[in-house]
Amino acid sequence: MQSTHLREHNLSALLGALVAADSPVSRATLATATGLTKPTVSKLVEELIGAGLITEGAPVPVGAGRPMVPLSPARRTLLAIGLEIAADHVACLGIDLSGEVVAHRLEYLRVTASSADEALRACARVVGQVRADAGDLPVVGAVVAVPGRIAPDDGRVLSAPNLDWTEVPLVGRLLERPELADLTVRAQNDNRLSVLTEIDRRPGDSFLYLRGSTGVGGAIVLDGELMDGRNGWAGELGHTVVEPGGALCRCGRRGCLEAYVSYHSLRERAGLGDEVRIEDLVDALAGSGDRAAVIGLIGRSLGLALANALNILDLDTVVLSGYLAPIAAELDPFIRGTVEAHALAVEAGPVRIERSDDQTDPALHGAARAALQPVLTAPGEWIARTR
Amino acid sequence: MQSTHLREHNLSALLGALVAADSPVSRATLATATGLTKPTVSKLVEELIGAGLITEGAPVPVGAGRPMVPLSPARRTLLAIGLEIAADHVACLGIDLSGEVVAHRLEYLRVTASSADEALRACARVVGQVRADAGDLPVVGAVVAVPGRIAPDDGRVLSAPNLDWTEVPLVGRLLERPELADLTVRAQNDNRLSVLTEIDRRPGDSFLYLRGSTGVGGAIVLDGELMDGRNGWAGELGHTVVEPGGALCRCGRRGCLEAYVSYHSLRERAGLGDEVRIEDLVDALAGSGDRAAVIGLIGRSLGLALANALNILDLDTVVLSGYLAPIAAELDPFIRGTVEAHALAVEAGPVRIERSDDQTDPALHGAARAALQPVLTAPGEWIARTR
Repeated sequence: MQSTHLREHNLSALLGALVAADSPVSRATLATATGLTKPTVSKLVEELIGAGLITEGAPVPVGAGRPMVPLSPARRTLLAIGLEIAADHVACLGIDLSGEVVAHRLEYLRVTASSADEALRACARVVGQVRADAGDLPVVGAVVAVPGRIAPDDGRVLSAPNLDWTEVPLVGRLLERPELADLTVRAQNDNRLSVLTEIDRRPGDSFLYLRGSTGVGGAIVLDGELMDGRNGWAGELGHTVVEPGGALCRCGRRGCLEAYVSYHSLRERAGLGDEVRIEDLVDALAGSGDRAAVIGLIGRSLGLALANALNILDLDTVVLSGYLAPIAAELDPFIRGTVEAHALAVEAGPVRIERSDDQTDPALHGAARAALQPVLTAPGEWIARTR
Repeated sequence: MQSTHLREHNLSALLGALVAADSPVSRATLATATGLTKPTVSKLVEELIGAGLITEGAPVPVGAGRPMVPLSPARRTLLAIGLEIAADHVACLGIDLSGEVVAHRLEYLRVTASSADEALRACARVVGQVRADAGDLPVVGAVVAVPGRIAPDDGRVLSAPNLDWTEVPLVGRLLERPELADLTVRAQNDNRLSVLTEIDRRPGDSFLYLRGSTGVGGAIVLDGELMDGRNGWAGELGHTVVEPGGALCRCGRRGCLEAYVSYHSLRERAGLGDEVRIEDLVDALAGSGDRAAVIGLIGRSLGLALANALNILDLDTVVLSGYLAPIAAELDPFIRGTVEAHALAVEAGPVRIERSDDQTDPALHGAARAALQPVLTAPGEWIARTR
């Protein structure tokens, strides 16, 4: 038992080091990176090669010594499936162990309460297509990104205001579809998946992550770890109150941040149709008028919600994502003005307001990455399953 | 090196088990509690007895076997000093390893910016008196509770609005006094010390702690551990905004929770003098008028700040302390109404609003307990120091 446990731990450390490396590495480098002996590394690497998780490249001459054999995560030997349900589309992304995209499918549809079944059928279709496109590679599992609160025990969507969903037994229903019936399926809040790329970019950092999209949501990262809370909902800044008794939010509450700065709320308040793309929102709102006024309005609402969150958490870094990322520099003075007026953190030093990287579909990519995780955590189990 | 480390770890485990026990325990019970062998326990216990950290009681006959020798934390062999600087007094509490109060001294004075020096002299006096009262027992160290933000590196008070203090080099100045010059002195926020008793009462729990006093502050407890944040300021709910652009707070900001529900703000807004004691505040505010209106006002402000904090942290339990504890049941419907209107946590189940225990001076007791911690964490170091 102990040795199975140790073997799993060592396999996971090796595979983790390999996946984290930017370029192919030698067995000797892996031994240094993991602290394992060279004979142990060699033995386990053979096993991982045999299981199709590691690929050996052509030997590279190194000075007078033995040539170096470069090792990489295997490509196209397995499939991790990310699925995203957004207000206007469902999408599926299949990646392999190297993180490379194997297949991607998308269907546009307006997802609402009445179309939940239609959305689930579309989900099943895009998953089926991605699995077929990938030539029926063995699948690690699927993770579904949803803009809402998920019950931690059974994958029900408790509420997803921007889909008009309440109490949708998402995971249960997906498992009824033949395209997913044989898979391990988990559901997760979209913002908590979006932040995964940002965690990789800022190893060990602590920051507050805020994403502007159809709705507004966030995540809290402490020393490189995502904070969970009781139900896995920590970081829901979108429904903190910035104006008591204020505007009606799609969640049914009043004065939520989301009621002021989400794509939905900004567009509707300005009387714009939903043909305005989210990336064009601020341009459309500004029109021929005062762009600074639009930015100021968004920035001040964000500033208040962020100041409150920074006070509660005692953090000093904010990362803006989604439609907020490209306008982060414009928002900065407005957010900063409000944050500096209210956040205690400024007594210790300046608050940093940064933008996330520009990856498109971060929730979908995060979902696929999360789906890959079981292989990285327990390669031995995966090997036993696929043998 | 490794064995010193191991020895310290084992000594700490033994002493921790002994202090946590409600009644005297045997060597055999300690072996079970710590997982150490009986010979190891016997050897280490002898050492702790020799160092005056453990006391052996009279043997108690146990059936036909060898009599049980009851062990307890030693009394009055060392002193841990808690010090509290409040708006209207400074106090010092000396406890021993068993947690028993050895000495307590208090001086009333109005602490303000202009009287910072006077307050520091009073601190030194009460410490000197407590040390003398305790018969000059060896002192582990002193922890000072302050209602404000402390610089984590050097114990400066950055801001303590209810003392009118900004940038007071508290620890540095205390160390200049002969009564404290030979001690390790640390400063800590008063609410973060107050919560320690509550953490003991709810082992492993996660909750939000809110204390109403001259000001209003809080702490966040996750799985029994106090959350720190970047500067050790996490949980500062008192300066989250409940009314944008609202009432002026003593911290200089506008609309803070503290500007609505602290003793200071409630008393001043009602035009009451500071002869009103904090425990009589609500009675005085209600006067012959509408008590429910007073409670409702406090409850709704608290509810909004708590709802925001619960959304950010994804917690479902609130513990009210200070002047809020005795009126927790009265506040409950008003807090609950606002929390249920805004907190996402209610989608997963009811939010619990509870009261803290009724210990008087929780910050002072917490400070003394925190001052004791080094002996519990590293008994070997303490033994070497006092040998």
